[in-house]
Amino acid sequence: MERSIDKLIFLDHQSVSPVFKEALELFYHYSLEPFSPLSIHQLGIQSKKTLESALESFSSFIGCSPDELVFTGGIWEAIILGIEGFWRKNSLRGKHILTSPIEQKPILLLLDKLKREGAQLTLLPVDKEGMVDPKAIEELSTPQTILCCLQWVNPEIGTIQKIKEAAEICEKKSIAFFCDGSYAGGWIPIDLKKIPISLLAINPNQFNGPKGIGVLYIRQGIEIEPIIPGLNKELGLWGGTENMASIVAAAKAAEITTKIFKEKIEKIGYFQKLIWERISASIPMVSLNGPQLGPNRSIQNLNISPEFIGGEAQVLSCDMKGVLLSSGPSCVQKNLRISHVFKAVGLEYQKAMSSVRISLGITTTKEEIERFLDIYIGVVTKLREMSIGWKKFLSKKNSE
Amino acid sequence: MERSIDKLIFLDHQSVSPVFKEALELFYHYSLEPFSPLSIHQLGIQSKKTLESALESFSSFIGCSPDELVFTGGIWEAIILGIEGFWRKNSLRGKHILTSPIEQKPILLLLDKLKREGAQLTLLPVDKEGMVDPKAIEELSTPQTILCCLQWVNPEIGTIQKIKEAAEICEKKSIAFFCDGSYAGGWIPIDLKKIPISLLAINPNQFNGPKGIGVLYIRQGIEIEPIIPGLNKELGLWGGTENMASIVAAAKAAEITTKIFKEKIEKIGYFQKLIWERISASIPMVSLNGPQLGPNRSIQNLNISPEFIGGEAQVLSCDMKGVLLSSGPSCVQKNLRISHVFKAVGLEYQKAMSSVRISLGITTTKEEIERFLDIYIGVVTKLREMSIGWKKFLSKKNSE
Repeated sequence: MERSIDKLIFLDHQSVSPVFKEALELFYHYSLEPFSPLSIHQLGIQSKKTLESALESFSSFIGCSPDELVFTGGIWEAIILGIEGFWRKNSLRGKHILTSPIEQKPILLLLDKLKREGAQLTLLPVDKEGMVDPKAIEELSTPQTILCCLQWVNPEIGTIQKIKEAAEICEKKSIAFFCDGSYAGGWIPIDLKKIPISLLAINPNQFNGPKGIGVLYIRQGIEIEPIIPGLNKELGLWGGTENMASIVAAAKAAEITTKIFKEKIEKIGYFQKLIWERISASIPMVSLNGPQLGPNRSIQNLNISPEFIGGEAQVLSCDMKGVLLSSGPSCVQKNLRISHVFKAVGLEYQKAMSSVRISLGITTTKEEIERFLDIYIGVVTKLREMSIGWKKFLSKKNSE
Repeated sequence: MERSIDKLIFLDHQSVSPVFKEALELFYHYSLEPFSPLSIHQLGIQSKKTLESALESFSSFIGCSPDELVFTGGIWEAIILGIEGFWRKNSLRGKHILTSPIEQKPILLLLDKLKREGAQLTLLPVDKEGMVDPKAIEELSTPQTILCCLQWVNPEIGTIQKIKEAAEICEKKSIAFFCDGSYAGGWIPIDLKKIPISLLAINPNQFNGPKGIGVLYIRQGIEIEPIIPGLNKELGLWGGTENMASIVAAAKAAEITTKIFKEKIEKIGYFQKLIWERISASIPMVSLNGPQLGPNRSIQNLNISPEFIGGEAQVLSCDMKGVLLSSGPSCVQKNLRISHVFKAVGLEYQKAMSSVRISLGITTTKEEIERFLDIYIGVVTKLREMSIGWKKFLSKKNSE
């Protein structure tokens, strides 16, 4: 079953995304030579300049100032630094935290940990599409509320939250607003001059930067306690010596993304439409989980449930034909049959079990989409032929 | 002052070290394609296999089992996971922690943080060369002692601690033994089957692996609490999805290091001897800080004080001539004029102010060493000609 990667149709970009060659070449260069911006010799000074210019491009990518950025060893570290760092510094002012039930699992686990340390947690309600009504923040906050944690884009069902409204309500009520922007950076235009987010975590790999690096934006005036001692904010580091090669590569990915943004959004948005139109026209009894295509849904994400066949069976059958999909977000534990997101939006058990995620990315081509559609529709047809539930459904329908 | 890196003589390897090309090529490959060991499709399965084989080579590098390894986003994360993770899980059993005053600064800051949370700290005494007498562990431990944190190699003055003895005493007294092996991995043969270390942090960049990745060995039976929720120990991950490219690259660096170990140790040890012999013969009033060359000193490290001239002046003068040295460990804050290590070993103020560190690495050549010696001896001579202290010393000596 050895197959060259070139021939695979990779539609699992929200799990991991391929890194831009230009970014990797910079990583290579800055790793091969011993660059260290903390040294006082010429290579150190040159490194510091390079790092400063990388911080500059990264900050213009999201509309902030370079000294509002901290680079960490990965996206989870950035998220933890934001949430736990804020809690440690500010929990004397109040103990109440608002969040949504569809945040990424490790965030909910982290908040649970803070709960054991005295935090009070309130979950903002979500509707069937995973949307939080920002007004709920106003209604559910108390004078004790110090923080609201809300993701920008849900990686499972593609919901885009009303982040601007939510951030503005928090600002008005003097509540710090942490946003998990893991799946927003590079996919939604972000201008922090216009949205009063207090803390924003960004995952460079989601816009084809390297893995092993995360970014936390900390708005001027927001105080957090470093989780890793030795935080060097001046240089945008979260502790220890710099990971210069990764920072420079991440900044390059941000630069390229800015340059190609319009074209990328148009292309991927068009592919998403193409896929859903063909699937909804060709496959009976299929539903889209999460919001309809449009402003409330990430153009990267399609989560669909063709009823009466299992999600895992679809993923494995597609895999045999060279199409790589996902039957759940990559960070969800395998033993959780139904994800916490599906539970929170109240998706019926049958639909949850039959769901697959198709996630598009920069390398996706129209030719791939067309081949994928033929293969996928074939797989669903085949699996349904073997499905007892489907046969029962058909005969019930025919007898009606 | 633009100068090609090729012509620079880089003798600051304990700050950052150049990455093996073979390791970078793997990093490149596993970043360019979307490998993710958590996915269930074929690329996921292939990734899991690759990752498992990387864990296998890494574990044989230090003589442990693959499931005793956790990969983190950097060396500091590995250290914190080891110390703070152990504390969080075990502090109900006892509150007393032993450590040395010459641990790396962020470790001391971390222990200070734990002190504010109720830990009791005792510093093991060090002698003038930075050596801890392992018997002090026996004498200073109490029934409350749960942990002893001791570094293997000091990056500033090159002291190699008696880790085997220390670990054995801890084992006998049922005290967990955390070892900061940042500057030992790749430089000292490590066989964890023979040394009862409980927790060992390793920095792949110190043996020419990539930055942005750290490794924590957790001995079977030692329990820690994950700092980052979502720790997936089965796959050697500390949270979130895998940083596959870095893990594979780090394992390659470990493999190469094992292969060339004997030759590298002989070469660098010879260079160290060469440098110190020539410097001590050619420069009057120069002293070696830390242990004499031999089994108690890292072969990578020379920390010397030619009296009456400043360390920073030496570094900057050498820099103008293309030789890159350090006047302090890169993780020490610049505003600390005298490092905590020098204070702990009781180095005289004059000597501390005039110290420079020469740290050797895999790319160092004999030709570089010879050019360096000529340049460095010239720089010292020149700076002394301008030094009032030196002139006073000379005239005092002449009048005696």
